[in-house]
Amino acid sequence: MPSNPEWVKALKPSGPQGSELLSQERAKSNLNIDQLADFMFTQEVLKRNDQILKILQADPVFDKSQNYFRGRISRIEAALARGKRLQQLQVKHRWTRDEYQTASDLISEPTPYGLHSSMFIVTLREQGTPEQHKLFLEKAEAYKIIGCYAQTELGHGSNVRGLETTATWNSDDKTFTINSPYLTASKWWIGSLGRTANHAIVMAQLFINDKAYGPHPFVVQVRDMKTHEPLPGVHVGDIGPKFGYNTMDNGFLLFKNVKIPHVNMLARFSSVDPSTSKYVRPSNPSLVYGTLTFVRSTIVLQAGSTLARGVTIATRYCAVRRQFQDRDVHEPGENQVLNYTMVQIRLLPLLAATYALHFTGKSMIRLYQENQKRMSAGDAGKLSDSNRGPGPEELNPGTDLLADLHSTSCALKAYGSTTAAEGLEVCRRACGGHGYSSFSGIGTWYADYLPTVTWEGDNYMLTQQVSRYLLKSARSVIQGKAAKNDTTRILIDFIRRRDIGCAFDVIGNDDDLVAAFAWRVSFLTFEALRHRDEDKQSWNSLLVDFWRLSTAHAQYMIVKNFHDALRDQNTKKQLDSETVSLLHKLFRLYALHTLEREASEFYSSAAVTVRQITLARTKTVMKLLEEIRPHAVRLVDAWKFSDWQLDSSLGRYDGNVYEDMFHRASELNPLNNVVFDPYPDSKTLFKKDERKDLRSKL
Amino acid sequence: MPSNPEWVKALKPSGPQGSELLSQERAKSNLNIDQLADFMFTQEVLKRNDQILKILQADPVFDKSQNYFRGRISRIEAALARGKRLQQLQVKHRWTRDEYQTASDLISEPTPYGLHSSMFIVTLREQGTPEQHKLFLEKAEAYKIIGCYAQTELGHGSNVRGLETTATWNSDDKTFTINSPYLTASKWWIGSLGRTANHAIVMAQLFINDKAYGPHPFVVQVRDMKTHEPLPGVHVGDIGPKFGYNTMDNGFLLFKNVKIPHVNMLARFSSVDPSTSKYVRPSNPSLVYGTLTFVRSTIVLQAGSTLARGVTIATRYCAVRRQFQDRDVHEPGENQVLNYTMVQIRLLPLLAATYALHFTGKSMIRLYQENQKRMSAGDAGKLSDSNRGPGPEELNPGTDLLADLHSTSCALKAYGSTTAAEGLEVCRRACGGHGYSSFSGIGTWYADYLPTVTWEGDNYMLTQQVSRYLLKSARSVIQGKAAKNDTTRILIDFIRRRDIGCAFDVIGNDDDLVAAFAWRVSFLTFEALRHRDEDKQSWNSLLVDFWRLSTAHAQYMIVKNFHDALRDQNTKKQLDSETVSLLHKLFRLYALHTLEREASEFYSSAAVTVRQITLARTKTVMKLLEEIRPHAVRLVDAWKFSDWQLDSSLGRYDGNVYEDMFHRASELNPLNNVVFDPYPDSKTLFKKDERKDLRSKL
Repeated sequence: MPSNPEWVKALKPSGPQGSELLSQERAKSNLNIDQLADFMFTQEVLKRNDQILKILQADPVFDKSQNYFRGRISRIEAALARGKRLQQLQVKHRWTRDEYQTASDLISEPTPYGLHSSMFIVTLREQGTPEQHKLFLEKAEAYKIIGCYAQTELGHGSNVRGLETTATWNSDDKTFTINSPYLTASKWWIGSLGRTANHAIVMAQLFINDKAYGPHPFVVQVRDMKTHEPLPGVHVGDIGPKFGYNTMDNGFLLFKNVKIPHVNMLARFSSVDPSTSKYVRPSNPSLVYGTLTFVRSTIVLQAGSTLARGVTIATRYCAVRRQFQDRDVHEPGENQVLNYTMVQIRLLPLLAATYALHFTGKSMIRLYQENQKRMSAGDAGKLSDSNRGPGPEELNPGTDLLADLHSTSCALKAYGSTTAAEGLEVCRRACGGHGYSSFSGIGTWYADYLPTVTWEGDNYMLTQQVSRYLLKSARSVIQGKAAKNDTTRILIDFIRRRDIGCAFDVIGNDDDLVAAFAWRVSFLTFEALRHRDEDKQSWNSLLVDFWRLSTAHAQYMIVKNFHDALRDQNTKKQLDSETVSLLHKLFRLYALHTLEREASEFYSSAAVTVRQITLARTKTVMKLLEEIRPHAVRLVDAWKFSDWQLDSSLGRYDGNVYEDMFHRASELNPLNNVVFDPYPDSKTLFKKDERKDLRSKL
Repeated sequence: MPSNPEWVKALKPSGPQGSELLSQERAKSNLNIDQLADFMFTQEVLKRNDQILKILQADPVFDKSQNYFRGRISRIEAALARGKRLQQLQVKHRWTRDEYQTASDLISEPTPYGLHSSMFIVTLREQGTPEQHKLFLEKAEAYKIIGCYAQTELGHGSNVRGLETTATWNSDDKTFTINSPYLTASKWWIGSLGRTANHAIVMAQLFINDKAYGPHPFVVQVRDMKTHEPLPGVHVGDIGPKFGYNTMDNGFLLFKNVKIPHVNMLARFSSVDPSTSKYVRPSNPSLVYGTLTFVRSTIVLQAGSTLARGVTIATRYCAVRRQFQDRDVHEPGENQVLNYTMVQIRLLPLLAATYALHFTGKSMIRLYQENQKRMSAGDAGKLSDSNRGPGPEELNPGTDLLADLHSTSCALKAYGSTTAAEGLEVCRRACGGHGYSSFSGIGTWYADYLPTVTWEGDNYMLTQQVSRYLLKSARSVIQGKAAKNDTTRILIDFIRRRDIGCAFDVIGNDDDLVAAFAWRVSFLTFEALRHRDEDKQSWNSLLVDFWRLSTAHAQYMIVKNFHDALRDQNTKKQLDSETVSLLHKLFRLYALHTLEREASEFYSSAAVTVRQITLARTKTVMKLLEEIRPHAVRLVDAWKFSDWQLDSSLGRYDGNVYEDMFHRASELNPLNNVVFDPYPDSKTLFKKDERKDLRSKL
């Protein structure tokens, strides 16, 4: 398509311009953006982001201008090229793991190397023996073999114990035979497997002499190292298009009695003794399962920044977009959409949530690291992870923080990722019609994020683990054998006061506000305990209650962590008092808005009165919206997303949203190189097709 | 990609097979599916659907097998071909409007003729004079000119009064000059405009002698009839990819002083007298605005079937999918996912909502038609539509049902389409990981439906109109001048009893259950009235309350309509008592589940007690889930979606979901014709590219 005609180039949006409106917004608030950003991310990290951004922007492989227009095959082709270049850059600049991650975040789409550089390498490192490191890990790190992690099957997602792929030990020739007895045994959803990997870590049911030993990890080569064609007995391919994540080649994989050597079973924790054919039991699996707690804590932290992208885009656009005049205030011109309370009530609590999740995630990771230190020092708590299913009630909230941390990470992973996913959709809709355009930059981001509510523990499944832990804690409290941690503290406090009542001043006193969230959790815990232990209700009949309980627990943890972060001496040292006071308003907005949304549980637990809820809703929350409103744009600016990363017309830092929308539609859009033949009876569909080359047609 | 190897073809899913499980499901229930379907849709319509389905399935143009794999340009190319064939079939089979619509529904994706066959032709018909019908409508109906309806602009979505495109009357040569003074004046989102239309009905601000007369419709030719290239002074094109709706060429359009003759202003309701240059005022605009009420009622009805597709897919798949064993019941094998209460609580209330919306939509359309008859008979109520903004409070709930119907249609359009959109996403997630695959059939359907929450009145904006009407009604009640309709009836009833209290038996008595919903609406109405009229709160500060009020009103209307439908003599005549009793359970599930979700408003209005809510939640709703569960598959079967229409692996009628997933991934997926070169330093990205031809590469 030719560029815009001269008369079109001469057109401006009608005034006031988006750039003027955003300048006004930024002038309205004194918030020190750099100070707040330094506090949240550290100067060092921000500087590093800038340096890496420059490198990526200078490289045409990472050019984003055609991203939204491409079909799946050319998208994944571009992503493969990017994955390769990223690896070259990592070698060239000697990027650390963190720097590589920063580059990936800036590119903001998965590449076909995604699972190789994460799960394949991590699993080899953590579950391989030194011999296996030499054999597989070193080659993987040098990208001489490309791998993936093949666990989920067509018929089995959450339930790892139900996997159908088998690995049968052959004592005669010291090999394992990997086999897929059913169609449902096909590995499915395996990232990087569809077209990219030539190796897979395959989780398969180990059989020795017809006895089953449960799922174990095996390294299996699946494609020829030269031709990259599937090996004999292997059927492998891409599982097709998805709602998002289409730059990744999620794959399927079937085996017909494929033999692999003994050394291919990852043997750090359990193994088969080749001489005796005896199974060697796992040693200290808690070290492995601890990783899950870390991964989930990272998801909580990322939930904050994931949501913050959407909130940044929507807040800036709602400050630029003007529709209608205020009904009561008769000023000339239309009103910024962000001035309407119906928009504020959708966006500003989400803005508050981004900060709440950030501080909560930070705190979780800090706790995890402290606990890892303690564990290395030998004080390890016993912990098992039943992530993928309702395992036995074996958690022991005894010796230390680990069980508590594990449960909290489950609750927060579930609630945090749901908040981010659903919040992004709220942001998209808050942009009105234009939110539906790919150029909003929210749709793709949302669609790519959605799997997070399912992986690393399905958000609904996880709530069972949380509840199991809370019930166990409550039993220990009743028996007077409670461990010392925050969960038992709030349960004990509740028991002490349940007959007296609580009378929290949730509007006037922050400690009371946090305490009301704790009260509700405790109330729901003892309710559930009564149903389970006294009324002997079935586990299945309580699943909905468990989900509510876990959600309540997560909300309490977020409110508490946000509150703690603001009271921290370090915070007060690094931030000026105005910033702390603004963050405090965000804390109150988050807490009171949540309290109001969940009003019925707060009532029925008698944590608050109906009058308090009504006041919170009609007065306090509305007042907070008004007070935060002038700082909204600066508060999203503090997240420091670059325009390149956001890739959004609506969320541009400079506010030139309409110019950018028009430019992308009119000058970048390949569909405009095609001239339709519009009449039903014509012979052709296109009168002209001026797309330059095959590549641009993909 | 070659077809599956023999050993793969020989594999079956592990048992029990999906087909066995769905057969068992259907055997568990006695529900007479055909009887229920006949009642909902009529035999005649169901038969017609089957006939049209056969025609479409036989035609390769409508083959769906590559739909999910195509990039945007080849998707829209296929859609254009389908639009053309559809038109040919309509001529060939002499399809009525309804039959054409049925065919479109079965194809289930927009085509580039979408806005031509709807808004362009309808607007010409309704707003054109006989002369204009001859000039434009006849050609449009013969597809000699292809058109669209160009209202929304880049800078103005909801607010029609703020449109910037101008139409200036030139008295000297009796023409109008159409002009886009700003970039933001560009028409935007205009369906069928991007590449297809050669004509547009352009909404532009009419100026006569420098005086503005507001937005009016003008027919403007935008492309050459032969070359299909834009005419001079016209800049037109496709606006680019969107979250969904990518088979439609939504377009942009800018004019540089384009002249059109006098006859091109659609002149049925208002016009410019060419000899005097005087503006001729609109006659009876209420006839036009009545159409909006009809369109919105249709959206309510469609919301039911839209959601029902997702519920059908998710319910069938959750009956086939098995994960984990029940914790308490130790049976061999895994449990059907549909047996878990956490899945039931997500799906079954949505199943109930599909029926609730269906009966409500039916009732709305019947009321509308009755009222149209009355209006034609001269008894027309005055009605103005402020759909696109907070207009003056001019509704007069005086003479008849129309104002009430209009308000109800706004409330129900907003709530019904939001319920359907968000419900579809719940269905997608209830399918677990596989819900994320395009082959689930929910993602695309959801993404294509999303614009409905914005168009025909943004769902948030509409709630202001509803509240304005309810406030006005409340004032009329207080003044003793109330019209006779259902709204004033419930308001009067509330005033009569507000000091006494209500004591509704919501669990034991259906009438009381409906009355509790009415009570809450009335309570919220008088609360809002007090804030507005006594406390003099600003309109803006009440927007959130208005949204809640409108939502409450919609929920009341749905509960009431569902209840009325079940009590109707006709229902009892056409359905056996077991079916009525099952529908009654769905009614109670819908009502009590809604009551429980909105518990805090029911409490604070004193419509129910805390104890009642607790009982409803923990006992009644859980019991209803258990009672409805065995009938779930038959209840979705009664919606009578064909597999071809659903185009879903997970939602297949026969339950062979895994075979179908595998077939699509392994044998239809074009990405598997490409062999990657996986090493970072290799020269190429693809080692092999065996996609057959250019077309398959698009």
